[in-house]
Amino acid sequence: MEFTVQQIADLLQGQVQGDGNAKVNTLAKIEEGTPGALSFLSNTKYEPYLYTTGATAVIVAKSLELKQPVSANLILVEDPYSSFSTLLEVYQQAVAASRQGVEEPCFMGENSTIGERHYRGAFSYIGKNCKIGSGVHIYPHAYLGDNVTVGDNTIIYAGAKIYSDTKIGHSCTIHAGAVIGSDGFGFAPQKDGSYKAIPQIGNVILEDHVSIGANATIDCATMGSTIIHSGTKIDNLVQIAHNVEIGSHTVVAAQTGISGSTKIGNYCTLAGQVGVVGHISIADKTIIGAQSGVSKSVKESGTIIQGSPAFDYKQNLRCMTVFRKLPELQKQVEELREKN
Amino acid sequence: MEFTVQQIADLLQGQVQGDGNAKVNTLAKIEEGTPGALSFLSNTKYEPYLYTTGATAVIVAKSLELKQPVSANLILVEDPYSSFSTLLEVYQQAVAASRQGVEEPCFMGENSTIGERHYRGAFSYIGKNCKIGSGVHIYPHAYLGDNVTVGDNTIIYAGAKIYSDTKIGHSCTIHAGAVIGSDGFGFAPQKDGSYKAIPQIGNVILEDHVSIGANATIDCATMGSTIIHSGTKIDNLVQIAHNVEIGSHTVVAAQTGISGSTKIGNYCTLAGQVGVVGHISIADKTIIGAQSGVSKSVKESGTIIQGSPAFDYKQNLRCMTVFRKLPELQKQVEELREKN
Amino acid sequence: MEFTVQQIADLLQGQVQGDGNAKVNTLAKIEEGTPGALSFLSNTKYEPYLYTTGATAVIVAKSLELKQPVSANLILVEDPYSSFSTLLEVYQQAVAASRQGVEEPCFMGENSTIGERHYRGAFSYIGKNCKIGSGVHIYPHAYLGDNVTVGDNTIIYAGAKIYSDTKIGHSCTIHAGAVIGSDGFGFAPQKDGSYKAIPQIGNVILEDHVSIGANATIDCATMGSTIIHSGTKIDNLVQIAHNVEIGSHTVVAAQTGISGSTKIGNYCTLAGQVGVVGHISIADKTIIGAQSGVSKSVKESGTIIQGSPAFDYKQNLRCMTVFRKLPELQKQVEELREKN
Repeated sequence: MEFTVQQIADLLQGQVQGDGNAKVNTLAKIEEGTPGALSFLSNTKYEPYLYTTGATAVIVAKSLELKQPVSANLILVEDPYSSFSTLLEVYQQAVAASRQGVEEPCFMGENSTIGERHYRGAFSYIGKNCKIGSGVHIYPHAYLGDNVTVGDNTIIYAGAKIYSDTKIGHSCTIHAGAVIGSDGFGFAPQKDGSYKAIPQIGNVILEDHVSIGANATIDCATMGSTIIHSGTKIDNLVQIAHNVEIGSHTVVAAQTGISGSTKIGNYCTLAGQVGVVGHISIADKTIIGAQSGVSKSVKESGTIIQGSPAFDYKQNLRCMTVFRKLPELQKQVEELREKN
Repeated sequence: MEFTVQQIADLLQGQVQGDGNAKVNTLAKIEEGTPGALSFLSNTKYEPYLYTTGATAVIVAKSLELKQPVSANLILVEDPYSSFSTLLEVYQQAVAASRQGVEEPCFMGENSTIGERHYRGAFSYIGKNCKIGSGVHIYPHAYLGDNVTVGDNTIIYAGAKIYSDTKIGHSCTIHAGAVIGSDGFGFAPQKDGSYKAIPQIGNVILEDHVSIGANATIDCATMGSTIIHSGTKIDNLVQIAHNVEIGSHTVVAAQTGISGSTKIGNYCTLAGQVGVVGHISIADKTIIGAQSGVSKSVKESGTIIQGSPAFDYKQNLRCMTVFRKLPELQKQVEELREKN
Repeated sequence: MEFTVQQIADLLQGQVQGDGNAKVNTLAKIEEGTPGALSFLSNTKYEPYLYTTGATAVIVAKSLELKQPVSANLILVEDPYSSFSTLLEVYQQAVAASRQGVEEPCFMGENSTIGERHYRGAFSYIGKNCKIGSGVHIYPHAYLGDNVTVGDNTIIYAGAKIYSDTKIGHSCTIHAGAVIGSDGFGFAPQKDGSYKAIPQIGNVILEDHVSIGANATIDCATMGSTIIHSGTKIDNLVQIAHNVEIGSHTVVAAQTGISGSTKIGNYCTLAGQVGVVGHISIADKTIIGAQSGVSKSVKESGTIIQGSPAFDYKQNLRCMTVFRKLPELQKQVEELREKN
């Protein structure tokens, strides 16, 4: 897509300083701007790049006083950052709206329905008795089993696998290769030491505005539902076990794993590569540091923990400071023992 | 599927107390029971829910003495838990048996054969010279390369990728997105500091009753075979490197990684996010705690280890207890030094 | 494929001792050799197997003096290891060359082009405006979005997912289930505590000779590019976040995660399950031990670090040695305090 600088300025209710007929066809950081690119300058730390950038146009604050001549065409606005965010959104909406229709071959089983303005990519698969909303994008190789429901404007990227009976809300994003509804890891030990699979007949429920990262895995409940409440964002390669419940507006960073039947509160932050044991509860607004191993429930809202096993973040920092000097401490104790 | 309460009671050799004609169409926990649901009461801790449940029917022990009136219809049996397990299995077998036939388009290469009562989903791919048994389910987007063998009643879920030459036993379950037989991570350093890929010409062998979790990865051997022996269960997002051998009836929890050429014994338990270095041996019945890093062979059967690097579980607990008080210990040493 | 021992000897410029007409059809380790197999003996530690192997033929050094009678046919060469490597490469090239042509159905969007000698598997998907080189293999269920470029002789295995606008160099290998170009995990916190997705409009660039492991995930840049420079090898289930840049000839082992905007140097080695925080720089030739958590930039080339958080490898070893004796150290301090 190509636009003139004037068209962009009109969209942002800004003023052009330079050539309004110049054309831009991509967005770029100001320090990486090349001809055809549109950039923005918000943080004054980056102002030096304004005078050297190769970008065709730059969105700047009306209030900015130029210190040197600028070769780029300028678009003057009140708040460059929010103007640029607006542009990004318009851009993504245009991209999304342009993706409509059905590519063949694709598969939809009996009694399944899908709303208007949808996209179904080639080789996508929808089982029986599914109810799919309007404006839904189902990319190539996405798989939806039987009895799946998907709300309006949800995007299911290439090769995501949604097992039967999963319920997905509206405005969700499921990234490529994510698996939702696989069997929980439940095996009953037998007398001879072998294991027998416990049938997993529950499902997964994702509420609205939930995002699931690439190649993340969310197991179905043994019975009942594994639930991710609205607005929660799950990063790539995260593992959510059977019967877990995660509250609203919680963020779970990459490669974290949450074991079976654990409940995570609302507005929590789990950093990367965290592990949480099964059958515990984590209070609202808990923050868990990267690579922590959480073995006990967190009862107080707003707790910050770190470590494996995890405990109070500040105390953990103090302990780690001493840990790094342990050989010295040991030596001091030896010296004391020699004296005593 | 819908059944009358009487039909369920007959299947379980139990007696109906209430309306045998009432209909149930799903299974639910007693505390989550809704009309149409069948629940069970085994642990007496949950008995209060019996008097409030919305479930249409509940399986209870013959020996139970009711303390209040119950609105649900009851099915009286000797052992409610084992009766419910029986039901779950019957249910799953019915679901499995109902999935038969071939959805088009799907692909099967020359000289490949598949037994009776199988299911091949749309967009599933089977290469050349494959031998697939009876009752095998191959879901949509599953990929089997050339020369793959699969035993009877194995289930390969949507989008699982089985590279050429893999051998899979009977009654295995491969969950969605699992990758079996990818190249081992073998690169020979060159004089200029670059790396050259070492051709990986081995394969992967899964024996019988093996379960592989969603998006788990199992690399082929450089030469010979990476082997998972019978009855072993591998959870989601686990990484098994080239030439690893895992014994029978071992359980490997989510996000654990096992490096090249390591041997894991029989009846072991590896908790989540464990890492095991290459070229070591882990004795039978070893238990490795979550997030442990195993850097040395474990020689004695029944060893329990924890930590990164891992050592005796109890000693690790003791060390962690002192670790959390390290600032205090340091202070005590300082005080002693001032005195001495 | 089947060859006579004489054909193999001719290829390796070696001499046959035994039956040149004997036929081999597979490669095996000498200790696992069975009839039809070709093995090699390089490390003299394995010489005893030469006298007992079931292999039909063994490649040995001209200089080897036999200590016992050998039943296998021998191929005498200067350097058995390099001869065997040559064979492996010839074998893989033959396998690769045999895979050509297009299996139906497969999908290629408008304005996309692909060079000669390519393979496109059934159910593979190529979007619009893609430029794919010669000798490229695109396996079944592989997905390439729009505007993707792929250099010559790159192999994209089954079910790998390449988002739109990704640029892949020549001679790369993308293993099954890898996801390249998924949205970065960028969410702007709102006043009500909820999160709003920040549009991710950048892309991923893989230079030449890059290898990406099975089910690894590489996010696109928010703006600009996430870049993996030439010759770098990424193992299975690795997570590379948005705007990361990894230098040339660096090796990243399985299940490691690198957070947003971090730069990793050339010739580095990251062992398995490492975590690296965002917005830091790691100098060339840095070695990071398994399960380490790297929270600070590494400025000096050749640094070796270990631990979570990571610091100097040797100092970490010393600290861990004392850590394991912490209960003893605590006891000694208690004794000293009683005395003082």
